[in-house]
Amino acid sequence: MSEIIVQKFGGTSVGSVERIESVAEIVKNASHSNTVIVVVSAMSGETNKLIKLANHFGENPDKREFDALVSTGETISSALLTMALHSKGIKARSFSASQISMKTTDSYSKAKILDVDAEKILKVIEDGTIPIITGFQGITEGGDVTTLGRGGSDTTAVAIAAQVNASRCDIYTDVDGIFTTDPKIVSNAKKLDSITMEEMLELAGQGAKVIQTRAVEFANKYNVPVRVLSSFNDGEGTLINLKEETMENALVSGIAFQKDQVKFTLHGVGDIPGTAFKILGPISDAEVEVDVIVQNVSVDGKTDFTFTVSAEDQDTVTKVIEDIKSEVEFNDLMIDSEIAKVSIVGVGMRSQAGVASKAFKALSQNDVNIQIICTSEIKITMVIDKDLVDKAVQVLHEEFELDK
Amino acid sequence: MSEIIVQKFGGTSVGSVERIESVAEIVKNASHSNTVIVVVSAMSGETNKLIKLANHFGENPDKREFDALVSTGETISSALLTMALHSKGIKARSFSASQISMKTTDSYSKAKILDVDAEKILKVIEDGTIPIITGFQGITEGGDVTTLGRGGSDTTAVAIAAQVNASRCDIYTDVDGIFTTDPKIVSNAKKLDSITMEEMLELAGQGAKVIQTRAVEFANKYNVPVRVLSSFNDGEGTLINLKEETMENALVSGIAFQKDQVKFTLHGVGDIPGTAFKILGPISDAEVEVDVIVQNVSVDGKTDFTFTVSAEDQDTVTKVIEDIKSEVEFNDLMIDSEIAKVSIVGVGMRSQAGVASKAFKALSQNDVNIQIICTSEIKITMVIDKDLVDKAVQVLHEEFELDK
Repeated sequence: MSEIIVQKFGGTSVGSVERIESVAEIVKNASHSNTVIVVVSAMSGETNKLIKLANHFGENPDKREFDALVSTGETISSALLTMALHSKGIKARSFSASQISMKTTDSYSKAKILDVDAEKILKVIEDGTIPIITGFQGITEGGDVTTLGRGGSDTTAVAIAAQVNASRCDIYTDVDGIFTTDPKIVSNAKKLDSITMEEMLELAGQGAKVIQTRAVEFANKYNVPVRVLSSFNDGEGTLINLKEETMENALVSGIAFQKDQVKFTLHGVGDIPGTAFKILGPISDAEVEVDVIVQNVSVDGKTDFTFTVSAEDQDTVTKVIEDIKSEVEFNDLMIDSEIAKVSIVGVGMRSQAGVASKAFKALSQNDVNIQIICTSEIKITMVIDKDLVDKAVQVLHEEFELDK
Repeated sequence: MSEIIVQKFGGTSVGSVERIESVAEIVKNASHSNTVIVVVSAMSGETNKLIKLANHFGENPDKREFDALVSTGETISSALLTMALHSKGIKARSFSASQISMKTTDSYSKAKILDVDAEKILKVIEDGTIPIITGFQGITEGGDVTTLGRGGSDTTAVAIAAQVNASRCDIYTDVDGIFTTDPKIVSNAKKLDSITMEEMLELAGQGAKVIQTRAVEFANKYNVPVRVLSSFNDGEGTLINLKEETMENALVSGIAFQKDQVKFTLHGVGDIPGTAFKILGPISDAEVEVDVIVQNVSVDGKTDFTFTVSAEDQDTVTKVIEDIKSEVEFNDLMIDSEIAKVSIVGVGMRSQAGVASKAFKALSQNDVNIQIICTSEIKITMVIDKDLVDKAVQVLHEEFELDK
């Protein structure tokens, strides 16, 4: 058996029968030199159409039913792509999550993959058949259908690649690869030929929406090389490097940003051990991912505790904070949804001083006020006014000469 | 636990979110006095939309993939109806064929039910939850998705009713019940309050498209009382009686007809034992249901062998006959798709002479030529020119005074 590669096709890549036809051609060509496993998303628009139907019966449909509903989109596209391959004389067979025992937790709509029946997949490819697997879907121990959350098909693909020891996972999208920043905002943004896993993690987390964060984490954990490329145009895409040695070590590799954010500030929290956990524990239990967390130096035993979450989680988090009011003392709660995050990402930053101050200076010269700063070894995240995001990205892209 | 009833809703009954809302109301009301199990079809139009997508990749898509594709329609409607019930404060839970182990043969698109996990369904209803089960879908021993053929949801409902010992299976459709004939063709056609299982079997088989033949056979075999009624209008519908004693024993109870038919005639077949089996065996192996079969008296050891099948099976049957050419001798094959069947159905016929001659006379007086006649104890079927069907039905309906 030749080297195994997993190919994942997103919603726009399979958005019409004509697109599915093109994808079948890509799969067919790859199958000449590799053993191919395919993972597909729903046809773009399909999932939203289903959500709209569900919302007719209330804003918060039962999550089990919601997942049973929206997971049908992937079943449709996997069967159609299989038929498209048959029409080109290629042996292929569609599989749902249930059929390959893609076991997950029972956190509906945000389920996490636990296990997958690699033996079954390997048996199919040993037979010379290309398995066309539904992304996004999972199944609980009890047989209920789950979904992995938006973009979850990436994680499906990487998880399968890890389990079958694939030599690469190719994530096909509608962009040519990973850029130094969003080309819609900075016209001379440059496509990167490769990027380190760490940088990619930071970029994906910051909303460089090309690939799902969890997928990159999976790839990192199981050492799966991932490539991001376009199903619309030819090209080599961007390879996400596993090994740090091979990286280019540019000072700054990209500027990421995320707009749909909301900032929670608890004023006057008692600065005693365990407070952060008392706040973040229940939020995490509610399956909400907290992003930037900042706690200022305390004054008179009181401090301000600030964190950001995705805008869709605003109601959930507000409710959680109501619930913990009796356990965590604070003066008042401020919720601000007029914010956005901008991040400078680069492995090179860790050995180079001055990146932060250079960034702050450039932004201040352009009247962009920074509300919160939060730095890690390879990333500097700034929370700013939502309206200033585009300007900030342009300023930083130019400042760090990312178009060169 | 109160008496169990199974309610089945067809495609038009769940054809829009508004319709699903009405169905939820029907289910809710029934749940006040009964323990309810629901079976749903796909929203009308949905299955055809999926078939159209499939046909983009060829006229004859792989049957396994085709079934995986078209079965998604029922998954969607079962989740949506469950949500609609939740919004009315009713406990409900959707189930796919896989989740209730609705095991079938692996004859894709025409699968036959083998078994269903009644225990699982009973556990759900004991908990006070209404199971909303996907009709039409099945699953093979190996876990592949199958479908039961057009109208298969009726069979799903009756099979479940049989397994859980339901006291009745209500088939909700867009008509008020079973009529003496199609009200679109004979305006004063009368709704029957009850009909015998035998008559229903003959009527359903003849295309009184209200309920699937196989479902009636199942109901007959497992003694499940079935009622056909409308989800659009109030009313008691038509009860299909299990016990012959209770029937009205009308001379003629209805006129059925079927247009999408094709007639095969093998001229000059050797009239030797086993010939009929040699022809019909392979056709049955190809999962085609043969309807009228006529073999004329032989002349010089040769005879003409004629049978009719559904128009959609024309290609399959033509191929089968090509294949058996070497084993069955015949002079030539005639295929005629310009035909239709009209049947007079009535349990009373068996004890009354003259029904046939009365029918033949009425038709001949109205210039309807009868090509083939085939009679059973409670049915007289005539194959006539397709263009004359409406006229024939009107003539017979009047002749037997079915509007009275």
